[in-house]
Amino acid sequence: MATASSPGTPGDSPARGLVTVDEPDDPRLRDYTGLTDVELRRRREPAEGLFIAEGEKVIRRARQAGYAMRSMLLSAKWIDVMRDVIDEVPAPVYAVSPELAERVTGYHVHRGALASMQRKPLPTPGELLATARRVVIMESVNDHTNIGAIFRSAAALGMDAVLLSPDCADPLYRRSVKVSMGAVFAVPYARLDSWPGGLETVRDAGFELLALTPDEKAVPIDTAVTADGAARVALMLGAEGDGLTARALRAADEWVRIPMAHGVDSLNVGAAAAVAFYAVSRG
Amino acid sequence: MATASSPGTPGDSPARGLVTVDEPDDPRLRDYTGLTDVELRRRREPAEGLFIAEGEKVIRRARQAGYAMRSMLLSAKWIDVMRDVIDEVPAPVYAVSPELAERVTGYHVHRGALASMQRKPLPTPGELLATARRVVIMESVNDHTNIGAIFRSAAALGMDAVLLSPDCADPLYRRSVKVSMGAVFAVPYARLDSWPGGLETVRDAGFELLALTPDEKAVPIDTAVTADGAARVALMLGAEGDGLTARALRAADEWVRIPMAHGVDSLNVGAAAAVAFYAVSRG
Repeated sequence: MATASSPGTPGDSPARGLVTVDEPDDPRLRDYTGLTDVELRRRREPAEGLFIAEGEKVIRRARQAGYAMRSMLLSAKWIDVMRDVIDEVPAPVYAVSPELAERVTGYHVHRGALASMQRKPLPTPGELLATARRVVIMESVNDHTNIGAIFRSAAALGMDAVLLSPDCADPLYRRSVKVSMGAVFAVPYARLDSWPGGLETVRDAGFELLALTPDEKAVPIDTAVTADGAARVALMLGAEGDGLTARALRAADEWVRIPMAHGVDSLNVGAAAAVAFYAVSRG
Repeated sequence: MATASSPGTPGDSPARGLVTVDEPDDPRLRDYTGLTDVELRRRREPAEGLFIAEGEKVIRRARQAGYAMRSMLLSAKWIDVMRDVIDEVPAPVYAVSPELAERVTGYHVHRGALASMQRKPLPTPGELLATARRVVIMESVNDHTNIGAIFRSAAALGMDAVLLSPDCADPLYRRSVKVSMGAVFAVPYARLDSWPGGLETVRDAGFELLALTPDEKAVPIDTAVTADGAARVALMLGAEGDGLTARALRAADEWVRIPMAHGVDSLNVGAAAAVAFYAVSRG
């Protein structure tokens, strides 16, 4: 059974828009059902135009980045912390017990605060390329943790935009958002509509396409970057394990590598991306 | 019930030392019981002198690094893959069904092969410092994933040794070993016996102590390193979130930072470590 609270007034009375919900199958909680079911969420979220932000900091960052809130799901102790947001947004806020949150979402919600946010139309690659100088291009990165980590490093190390091959996973999937600490809202991204054909758009916009690979024939990344310091650089990264495909490597202008100590196969993709962004940002 | 196989001969007969085990409480499987119980394993492994290596590649790397094998636990399809190891080592090899492996260990063993390995005595910090030029020092890094990731990057980017504050977690804990891809065997490490007092040993060995911090007062890391390229460098890292403590920062010779884009708090510790190792290895 759900009870609408009385209209909010300043002080300790219930905030405006706060609704206590007691039933896990309350249809108003639909945005939050089955959050651990990756396949379900992959289908639903883009189709219904929503994504889930988790934890106070990430929810605030989503708002600051201009995403509209559909609703929030809060356990009692988070209501005071989020009071200013509750008062500002017209969206309904559902107060639930931690047990109910777990029954709805499928997991123990450690951070006690979830928000369902409305997606925005993605920019086109051309729009991003018009103003960016340092671009990340990911090929077939399907691991949500890796996508989040790469966005976080891209934001910290000054990359201007991210382009995704058509088969990359969704940066707004809950785990990516969380691992990125909200950096998926800070670094604009777009999807290339073909691969590797879409790379021509990048080259036509005046970017040099650098492919990151452990291949011995590649040049050390700092050499490649400092030799051509003024250029616009697009750094291509592949998935953990496989790296860039042969056709992506062929489509690149130059192969670059991070110099490795002998006998070690590789860095993980998150570490490699961070080092490469650092090297590119020094150029 | 357990059945000892007949002695191995070349071809498709059972390998020497292979024992099929059917009961989860068979005492010979004791090394593998409760692998997901972190507290239990933290107590048992150092006291009993063992650690667990998981997956073919990591088990082979542990052997190459000179660790003696106590036993292996294999599901059927891994027996052929590991046949050469089974034939070489005197340790017993227990063949189990995937279901039994799960009942014993507490989780689904994706990689199908576990080995219990004998620890070796750790070197002293002084022994490592005698020959190293680039050293990592970790303070209070308690997350096993982060420790593993840092070792992997340290190995790939040419750091020579790792020193741990007394309260760092165990690099040979299963998850650290796995995330490091066996790099915990490749980069020698030791524990400082006091903190931050033990840092004096490092300074006395001729190392400059660089503390990695996002603090604005720190100098950009490439400036610090290239200004003194010939020096022996010890790079101090703190845990995710907290970073280095005030007393660790006070004990350092210089503070270094990774230049960040505006408005981003920080890299995660794994990404920061990788960038810092790369910068130090350029010096």
